[in-house]
Amino acid sequence: MAKTPVLTPQSADFPRWYQDVVAKAELADNGPVRGTMVIRPYGYAIWERMQAELDARIKATGAQNAYFPLFIPESYLHKEAEHVEGFSPELAVVTHGGGKKLEEPAVVRPTSETIINVYFAKWIQSYRDLPMLLNQWANVVRWELRPRLFLRTTEFLWQEGHTAHATQADARDYTLRILHDVYEDFMVNVLGIPVAVGRKTDAEKFAGADASYTCEAMMGDGKALQMGTSHELGQNFARAFGTQFLTETGEQEHPWQTSWGVSTRLVGALIMGHGDDAGLRIPPRLAPVQVAVVLVRDEGGAGEAAAALTQELRDAGVRVQLDDRVDTSFGRRAVEWELKGAPLRLELGPRDVEEGVATVVRRDLTGKDSARLEGLAKQVPATLDDIQDSLLAQAKARTDAHTEDVTTLEDAREASQSGFARVAWDRIRDDEARIAEGGITVRCLQRPDGTVPTEPDEPDLIAVLARAY
Amino acid sequence: MAKTPVLTPQSADFPRWYQDVVAKAELADNGPVRGTMVIRPYGYAIWERMQAELDARIKATGAQNAYFPLFIPESYLHKEAEHVEGFSPELAVVTHGGGKKLEEPAVVRPTSETIINVYFAKWIQSYRDLPMLLNQWANVVRWELRPRLFLRTTEFLWQEGHTAHATQADARDYTLRILHDVYEDFMVNVLGIPVAVGRKTDAEKFAGADASYTCEAMMGDGKALQMGTSHELGQNFARAFGTQFLTETGEQEHPWQTSWGVSTRLVGALIMGHGDDAGLRIPPRLAPVQVAVVLVRDEGGAGEAAAALTQELRDAGVRVQLDDRVDTSFGRRAVEWELKGAPLRLELGPRDVEEGVATVVRRDLTGKDSARLEGLAKQVPATLDDIQDSLLAQAKARTDAHTEDVTTLEDAREASQSGFARVAWDRIRDDEARIAEGGITVRCLQRPDGTVPTEPDEPDLIAVLARAY
Repeated sequence: MAKTPVLTPQSADFPRWYQDVVAKAELADNGPVRGTMVIRPYGYAIWERMQAELDARIKATGAQNAYFPLFIPESYLHKEAEHVEGFSPELAVVTHGGGKKLEEPAVVRPTSETIINVYFAKWIQSYRDLPMLLNQWANVVRWELRPRLFLRTTEFLWQEGHTAHATQADARDYTLRILHDVYEDFMVNVLGIPVAVGRKTDAEKFAGADASYTCEAMMGDGKALQMGTSHELGQNFARAFGTQFLTETGEQEHPWQTSWGVSTRLVGALIMGHGDDAGLRIPPRLAPVQVAVVLVRDEGGAGEAAAALTQELRDAGVRVQLDDRVDTSFGRRAVEWELKGAPLRLELGPRDVEEGVATVVRRDLTGKDSARLEGLAKQVPATLDDIQDSLLAQAKARTDAHTEDVTTLEDAREASQSGFARVAWDRIRDDEARIAEGGITVRCLQRPDGTVPTEPDEPDLIAVLARAY
Repeated sequence: MAKTPVLTPQSADFPRWYQDVVAKAELADNGPVRGTMVIRPYGYAIWERMQAELDARIKATGAQNAYFPLFIPESYLHKEAEHVEGFSPELAVVTHGGGKKLEEPAVVRPTSETIINVYFAKWIQSYRDLPMLLNQWANVVRWELRPRLFLRTTEFLWQEGHTAHATQADARDYTLRILHDVYEDFMVNVLGIPVAVGRKTDAEKFAGADASYTCEAMMGDGKALQMGTSHELGQNFARAFGTQFLTETGEQEHPWQTSWGVSTRLVGALIMGHGDDAGLRIPPRLAPVQVAVVLVRDEGGAGEAAAALTQELRDAGVRVQLDDRVDTSFGRRAVEWELKGAPLRLELGPRDVEEGVATVVRRDLTGKDSARLEGLAKQVPATLDDIQDSLLAQAKARTDAHTEDVTTLEDAREASQSGFARVAWDRIRDDEARIAEGGITVRCLQRPDGTVPTEPDEPDLIAVLARAY
């Protein structure tokens, strides 16, 4: 099958390739108001699968979902000094409602720490009320001057968790539990993308946090994408909003808080973390369509065989779609399934049926294979597991190949042009601002063994440097 | 067990009772910006169950989820004349973004017909693209002057479906399929609330629609609540936005469209459709907690027995919660489970365990019962089915008791004070505006056999009149 290139090749122009995939795989479209995004059904189906996997993990930590208002009185933002400084330039402001000018303008939430703290102050009275573990799935707005679909949009969808704890130790444990058991686990084991997990430098941490932890992944062009963050807020918001609780020993104390979030940006990570010149490649555990059964021509019993195979797969719990659009050319449909990144394609035509086989195309490999139709459905779950492992292994191999341990600032700059540079934090900490002017940032700090430093001034830390989205 | 009344009795002050339930069952709180709402975890868990049940039904009709932007350019609203007239007084307007005044103000979506039609115009080219069946779960904003939690809030959560079809007949079929197979089925068989299904009068239809269909339910005070609507939009929006498709015979035509939605208002319906003086009563198919296993005292093996029973129920697929907070008084916890409306309570104390029984309390009945512990978990699913039927039967009996067939306008007014009045539409159609001044509206028009009239001027229609939320 001769293919005409439907996408700009990655090597020719990676940003253009990204735009092409988003458009051709029908993931999203630009909205009419600057920086907004229309998420099309296939893109949204991917997001729904992400939500389901994340939501189950979030609930497993004991958190409950809730919903707080979109509109926040402007004055709330001003209560925590660093927070307002961080978000003011990005706010969308509602000045009129119901045909009248509002007495106090309302901002459209850029994140919900402030409004949630007003309710924490109301709901939290005693140590018995702690920990209070809340999460919400919501849209947020941050005005973007250089929008890119999924990666930076004025409005995006996310989950934001907000918790309050009786002790600093409990808050820290929970921050790290979210980081590892929810985010890292999802990213590695579902999304199939290895992540560098670490602590943000003071310059890079969340506005209003004591400490920010992050998962950073390498995209196909060697740049880093911040995948998700989990923050220790200390008592900063509790103090600003007057949230206090009665301890077991009868004193009034401010609770220790956390917040954490991941967003539709993860769809961007999927595209750039696994995609190739033919389009998306979606790991089976995430894929809305795990198997496409493609009917080549409806002759010689092929239609019946394709329908039967589809049903067998569905009965086996596989997310399968039958493509019997035989009035569209087979080649065009094959290209479409490659674009959409279905992990496994099973093609059935009259000749296949005659020979009792199906043509098997794995999206993680090149070439085609043939398999006996009999018993095929039973083998598919194992094949999907294999594809899941293979995509993670490929992403890991690429990340490792473009990660360099260096000892000088100059070498770190050089290595950051095409991937991650790991360098002693002490060597470069005084140069952090200067490096940033060259478009390179410290993505995170790690201990020498790759684990996450939790104290502000641990010795011998490694800085992971990269260009970033 | 002597109870102190935790709620204002319904008979004393129904609106106050409603507010009490919302607060005491921890369903929601008022937001800081006028009319906005904080949905607390228990209220949100109910909404999540509603979403899951509705989403499965919506997808079964072939619709796919997508997401369109929150912000709509103000000019879009003006393209469909009736639509802008209907929504202008309720709009929230964003005038500033990213620190600057916007060239064109953006409205926060009150509903998404206009913005979705811009994309329909882009995506729909040929009859092969039809039907296009989209749904989105989103927040919308309509400025409310007299807000009430869940019933009328400035921001609310909902699903809004938007579809385009090649023919008027196909659009109408789909409108009615949503009305019956999604909405009515969910309301009757999950929410356990009978609904009068019919057509809106021209005065009551959606701004921009050719025809609106509705499900109306009677609340505990005899007033009607509009539960959900499904609209035939005709070609109105397609004309306004220039959406056209190439027919099979090679002509350019405007598609025929529909839109339909239900919202967090359904939580209000649950409260007022089933609640009693002790609080919520949630039908088992909807309940986040179907069974509360309440440990009376952790003595004589009761703790172990309660944990084992909980596990058995969980294994049987029951949504169960173990209440082992023995440091809180048993009476207080019993009151809390009644407030929260768990359909079934199984109480276990040392004496119960000694006798090999559990105390069984059904929320749909008064009094307590006793059941052998052995085999109890296996009987619970049938008991839950029974409670589901019983709550629907009770709501139906109340609705029937307060529905009156009348022949004169005067009797219709009288009957509408305490329930639904059914009267020949021809008798009152000239008085519709005048009746409305007295706070009574035509909730819907039905055929004499109770089915839905689909043509504009069918003869012998019955008008269902009521006071309404």
